[in-house]
Amino acid sequence: MRLPILVVNFKAYSEAAGRRALEIARAAERAARELGASIAVAPNHVELALVAQSVEIPVYAQGADAEAPGARTAHVAIDNIKAAGASGVILNHSEAPLALNTLSRLVSRARELGLDVIVCAPDARTGLAAAALGPHAVAVEPPELIGTGRAVSRYKPEVITESVRLVSAHFPDVAVITGAGVESGDDVSAALELGTRGVLVASAVVKAGDPYAKIVELARPLARA
Amino acid sequence: MRLPILVVNFKAYSEAAGRRALEIARAAERAARELGASIAVAPNHVELALVAQSVEIPVYAQGADAEAPGARTAHVAIDNIKAAGASGVILNHSEAPLALNTLSRLVSRARELGLDVIVCAPDARTGLAAAALGPHAVAVEPPELIGTGRAVSRYKPEVITESVRLVSAHFPDVAVITGAGVESGDDVSAALELGTRGVLVASAVVKAGDPYAKIVELARPLARA
Amino acid sequence: MRLPILVVNFKAYSEAAGRRALEIARAAERAARELGASIAVAPNHVELALVAQSVEIPVYAQGADAEAPGARTAHVAIDNIKAAGASGVILNHSEAPLALNTLSRLVSRARELGLDVIVCAPDARTGLAAAALGPHAVAVEPPELIGTGRAVSRYKPEVITESVRLVSAHFPDVAVITGAGVESGDDVSAALELGTRGVLVASAVVKAGDPYAKIVELARPLARA
Amino acid sequence: MRLPILVVNFKAYSEAAGRRALEIARAAERAARELGASIAVAPNHVELALVAQSVEIPVYAQGADAEAPGARTAHVAIDNIKAAGASGVILNHSEAPLALNTLSRLVSRARELGLDVIVCAPDARTGLAAAALGPHAVAVEPPELIGTGRAVSRYKPEVITESVRLVSAHFPDVAVITGAGVESGDDVSAALELGTRGVLVASAVVKAGDPYAKIVELARPLARA
Repeated sequence: MRLPILVVNFKAYSEAAGRRALEIARAAERAARELGASIAVAPNHVELALVAQSVEIPVYAQGADAEAPGARTAHVAIDNIKAAGASGVILNHSEAPLALNTLSRLVSRARELGLDVIVCAPDARTGLAAAALGPHAVAVEPPELIGTGRAVSRYKPEVITESVRLVSAHFPDVAVITGAGVESGDDVSAALELGTRGVLVASAVVKAGDPYAKIVELARPLARA
Repeated sequence: MRLPILVVNFKAYSEAAGRRALEIARAAERAARELGASIAVAPNHVELALVAQSVEIPVYAQGADAEAPGARTAHVAIDNIKAAGASGVILNHSEAPLALNTLSRLVSRARELGLDVIVCAPDARTGLAAAALGPHAVAVEPPELIGTGRAVSRYKPEVITESVRLVSAHFPDVAVITGAGVESGDDVSAALELGTRGVLVASAVVKAGDPYAKIVELARPLARA
Repeated sequence: MRLPILVVNFKAYSEAAGRRALEIARAAERAARELGASIAVAPNHVELALVAQSVEIPVYAQGADAEAPGARTAHVAIDNIKAAGASGVILNHSEAPLALNTLSRLVSRARELGLDVIVCAPDARTGLAAAALGPHAVAVEPPELIGTGRAVSRYKPEVITESVRLVSAHFPDVAVITGAGVESGDDVSAALELGTRGVLVASAVVKAGDPYAKIVELARPLARA
Repeated sequence: MRLPILVVNFKAYSEAAGRRALEIARAAERAARELGASIAVAPNHVELALVAQSVEIPVYAQGADAEAPGARTAHVAIDNIKAAGASGVILNHSEAPLALNTLSRLVSRARELGLDVIVCAPDARTGLAAAALGPHAVAVEPPELIGTGRAVSRYKPEVITESVRLVSAHFPDVAVITGAGVESGDDVSAALELGTRGVLVASAVVKAGDPYAKIVELARPLARA
């Protein structure tokens, strides 16, 4: 995982489904190339292989259900993500919470397969627990700010600074990134100044009139970092 | 949904992941064309859009998580399945059980979007409840036979006949199909003779040395029906 | 299950926890005796055995997690409910949704043990599916009205009449009861006039200044029915 | 929580249900008094209030479902546990896994209410994450040994020593206890020698011909510690 990073999560948004998934992924690829910034896209599961074989930037799965492949209908195993051509996975997003024990196994398996691993957490204390599992990064996102346009880096900066403090004290190899409500380049700059190494965004890009322009705005502070 | 039907479920098998997903889907497409049989494939979520835009036969999702699209990380909504180009969905497989209330909403939404809907059930009584929700078909599969090579149509024929009896008495518009342990063309013939309108298979095809030949063997009895 | 019935669900309300659980149960017992009405109480799991051995009226569990007892920490099996002295169980409340397949097994096991079984459903179609599983009663409760004080029997009477119509057409042995927003004796009378055989209430009793008086108000229409 | 401690988990065993719950709890109370040892019992949810008001030793809930009480049918909130008279809670047992984010909130709420909190984990790495959440103790139990009679302290001692090493390095206020397969006093002695401060047992006591004698055998090494 190249840091600092911008991760664009498509969630299950209609605005990022079907053909739109490819369009937004290509916009991110173009922005990454032009800015020299590290940008990853996380399409919905159903477009994962299609996007992974269509762009050169890192493609992350939005989650996973099981550590092992096999007779598991409607499950996406870590191995399936790898086979689909993705290079990373986001785990435990607040919209897709995972049992602690499952999460622990998924992190291990994803690292064995060489995938980038981001584990989300809603607050600093839970972020510390997530970091203990050994992912590349923890993404601390207060759920009450997700999708609101009120950026965590402005409305709850203490959550970020406390997360950075706790995680760096105990598990210094784990990067802290953040998200929730991030809408502008200034929000990203503020997040970096608070000590994070990246940002997770969704609606700001997916619902933008011009996703490419929005990605450029959000990634520019990373390119300068 | 054209009946009788053979549905090939790729589950999360490594043998049907990545490039293999396309290969097996194309083998099914070729068999369907040559036999004039109704064959659908159900790839893992991560290959759904890729497979759907690569073959002409029906492509079904293996499941769904939510009825509405939106801010739902790592969820596959019914609308996402439609946007990915799939034409149907399998719900409530015993490996991906759904809450009754969720299942009810998913069936409704899938039908609104014009998708084929198969609801799985482990026994006749539960199959009757599944049929009450109004899918196109219920697939009755005793979980203890799944993946065993001991076909339900031979080892538990009474489950099938009881399912056909109950469902046709109350909800005659709902087809009964079956699965679990089906390995051979004879197993498929037996299932049809018991009154079902199709078969759901997974390991028999996915783990076959020659998936194309196995699909032809399993679909031939349907083509004659 | 003696019909028509009033079932008082204590949920996880603080107002019905600890010593208050016994007080409300005894108020219900007194009202049942005085009116000659059928009244059951459903305390929180943690007070189930205590309440069951303290009152003579039917005591129902609010739910169950597994059909079989054994090595299942923090699970309440149907057999545990029976062993605790309860005489019935409410399954699939919209606040405690159950997988269809699990629900089917729980209904069967509860009936084997001689427990009264009520299965909840959010709408008429799902109620029909619930009835197919063979409980004594289905309780149709639109979740959007639960706890609102806007009674289903007044605000969505068509949900009740459609439930009664569908269930009685297919599964005439299964009683339809209702709930959601029921606050007054008039709401109960309206529910009975629409063809139901009972009512499920929670906040109206649990949060009443005088639970005994409220139970009497709600049960009186049943006693006359 | 007085350390070292023996915690007897009744799970959903029929052998510890109904009247047997009180008998085993009283046997534990007698053993605690006679040995001067710290012994807690964890009855099934349905007997929690009944046992809590019948014995003087600590009574723990086997789990919890929600941090807040209220309109949550069939949920056991932390506040319900407190109201029932219990003095502690076991969270995230491998048979009752909790989402990381939920677990984090439950630990916080339980500590606010003054309850003893044990969080279970299947291995050392996950135990470290559990310790980060701030419980009084983590109980490391390899699930593959639970109920086998093959004690973790003999068959997987490295899991214990690694847990003690990691947790004491990062979170020295959190005690490490263990369990899984513990059947004899010698198993308990071995666990204490490896650095743990207590043991969690279930089947060894619940299925014993003489639960009192078995509790005495298991608790004696603690009394000497």
